[in-house]
Amino acid sequence: MKSAIAVEKGAERYADGDLHPFDQKNEMFKRPLWDPMMLDLGKKFYFDRISPRNTPGYTLYDQALVNAAWRLEDDCAQGVRGGKMGMYAWDWAGKFSYPRVRKGLKVKVGDPNLMSRNIKKAATFFGASLVGICRVDRRWLYSPLYLITREGGKVVENDLPETLKYAIVIAIEMDYEGIGTAPAHPASAATGLGYSRMAFTAGLLAQYIRGLGYQAIPCGNDTACSIPLAIDAGLGELGRNGLLITPEFGPRVRLAKIFTDLPLTPDSPIAFGVWEFCQICGKCAEKCPSQSIMRGGPTSETHNISNRENVRAWHINAETCLAFWVANGTDCATCIRVCPFNKPWGAHHEFIRWVISTQPRFNRFLLWVDSALGYGKKKAPQRFWGGSSLTPPDILEE
Amino acid sequence: MKSAIAVEKGAERYADGDLHPFDQKNEMFKRPLWDPMMLDLGKKFYFDRISPRNTPGYTLYDQALVNAAWRLEDDCAQGVRGGKMGMYAWDWAGKFSYPRVRKGLKVKVGDPNLMSRNIKKAATFFGASLVGICRVDRRWLYSPLYLITREGGKVVENDLPETLKYAIVIAIEMDYEGIGTAPAHPASAATGLGYSRMAFTAGLLAQYIRGLGYQAIPCGNDTACSIPLAIDAGLGELGRNGLLITPEFGPRVRLAKIFTDLPLTPDSPIAFGVWEFCQICGKCAEKCPSQSIMRGGPTSETHNISNRENVRAWHINAETCLAFWVANGTDCATCIRVCPFNKPWGAHHEFIRWVISTQPRFNRFLLWVDSALGYGKKKAPQRFWGGSSLTPPDILEE
Repeated sequence: MKSAIAVEKGAERYADGDLHPFDQKNEMFKRPLWDPMMLDLGKKFYFDRISPRNTPGYTLYDQALVNAAWRLEDDCAQGVRGGKMGMYAWDWAGKFSYPRVRKGLKVKVGDPNLMSRNIKKAATFFGASLVGICRVDRRWLYSPLYLITREGGKVVENDLPETLKYAIVIAIEMDYEGIGTAPAHPASAATGLGYSRMAFTAGLLAQYIRGLGYQAIPCGNDTACSIPLAIDAGLGELGRNGLLITPEFGPRVRLAKIFTDLPLTPDSPIAFGVWEFCQICGKCAEKCPSQSIMRGGPTSETHNISNRENVRAWHINAETCLAFWVANGTDCATCIRVCPFNKPWGAHHEFIRWVISTQPRFNRFLLWVDSALGYGKKKAPQRFWGGSSLTPPDILEE
Repeated sequence: MKSAIAVEKGAERYADGDLHPFDQKNEMFKRPLWDPMMLDLGKKFYFDRISPRNTPGYTLYDQALVNAAWRLEDDCAQGVRGGKMGMYAWDWAGKFSYPRVRKGLKVKVGDPNLMSRNIKKAATFFGASLVGICRVDRRWLYSPLYLITREGGKVVENDLPETLKYAIVIAIEMDYEGIGTAPAHPASAATGLGYSRMAFTAGLLAQYIRGLGYQAIPCGNDTACSIPLAIDAGLGELGRNGLLITPEFGPRVRLAKIFTDLPLTPDSPIAFGVWEFCQICGKCAEKCPSQSIMRGGPTSETHNISNRENVRAWHINAETCLAFWVANGTDCATCIRVCPFNKPWGAHHEFIRWVISTQPRFNRFLLWVDSALGYGKKKAPQRFWGGSSLTPPDILEE
């Protein structure tokens, strides 16, 4: 019972006109550094730290969990700022390079199919929840780049070599219980942990490819847009919430990618009924705390410069979204929590996914069942911590 | 059906005389840097890289997997060399310190029991397979330390503050299929991945504790001996193979620890029949490729300066063990693979553990069954890679 079917077009299927590389300075987390309209919000987002509260999900426990979850990304990867360091280094790096492989060896790739299987085994071994391969469509590269440095934002050319013709896209599952508390902090902790795990797995997989004698560039959010690459690599479809929806975890994943010149066989893009289901569902739009998600049918209408032109889908209002994050004191994942495709693993969910992918006439009924069963409802953050006995701590100020 | 029972003594139970801190320069991976007897072996171990072979488990795929698995430990932690950097940094570090928590806040710990539950939730969330807490017995600290630096070995005092009275010990499960190929490279890859995951989880957990306003020092193999700390923290017993045997995974774990001044409740040490079972079993001793594991009953007899004095157990001959690693071209985990306590999760295994812990008279019969069922046999490395179709690659030399 396979719920996803191979389709011809990847991210290209959402085109409504010519698609061009996206100028990274227009991306939501970069505009607060230069856009006069966003400077005030940006200061709050990047520098204000609100005090912990006695509200479950907003205590110092919760805040500290978020902070810790990001540790590897923040200190040894920095993909959200531009990458190119630590686990996202573009080369071997380290003081003890090539420590366990002889230098100058290169695998002769006889069969790219076998090589692709081999890479997928390594990716899974290193912690990838899903892995797919695509040819690099350079329209998905950010160009130019906009890096966050200690001195502020910086525009630079995208120097990803054209010889790296393949991208390996990995998805990292985020914690179901954590996301279930969105928009409270345990959801942000699940997000932060996703970022740190992205860096872990992409960094190790890139090093594996280097050990086979090929170039490999591991990236988090930097260098290129992950979602179109993931769609091209057959990991899922685009959803109303602007996120990649995967058959296995719905939108409850984070994405990383490794660019390489290792000869591989691209996977086929897939469809499994998301496009149709999102048209009748609107849970994310309805439940979004800042009403930043469009209702109605797909459109190429955009909100502002943070949306990509000539895409017919549902565009997110990233300005109001970020404003809610600042007011909330942490990021939000409500549109991930409430999505009917966000389910823990279960054979019955497998079956329903198959129905959605083959019998769209049941979509409205299934949507009704989903709500009736209480899926997507916010879970009490105390339960994430293992019981209501965990009361908010007293805080001493030093 | 609980297989492990609380016992009074932790690692102290193996004492046969006074125990003192271990001089780290006598530890097996440090002696190759200074001990005249070990210098030749050390050069090979640290600098020679043998060519890949056409033997499954020893190809360039396998070697590259090992190299990649160690990436985080090698580049962003270095616990095997001395720690104190990257994920094992002793303080907040990073260019963006305290990014998601306000400075100067401190949780008032009303109930150390609740705090311990909270810490265990965070540890598990960050990837710990097992977690336990003990008071720090400073006899388990290395003293003095012996660090591996770019300029060679260096003796320094152990400056772990005495105010850090508790250790949180985490165990990271290693891949069952990988370890099953020992002493081939996929087992080393499982080991390397264990080291990288140790750094990941310990680094995040330490950051969490700092966010609560307390000191936390994350360590891999550095700073203190992990096994006695883990025994004190109730994670398992000492086995004939010189390793910690846990009820859940047997010896198939790696250990990391976080020292902290956060008030916690120590766990009770446990026993579940390992001491008795190891006396009638001798699989690790029988199958050890270098015959570095003692047969017969427990003894305080040592092989050389790499063994701790006044411990009555089974001492490993680390010299012959390391010599086999060098000859093998990678480390070995045969004593982990063949141990009857090394099992994947399964309800029937839970039951048998319960029998072992309560009805030792069946030990010989169970040992016979274990062998008869073929557990512990070396698995073909091709199967690890997903099928015998994966033939060794042709290698180009550049």
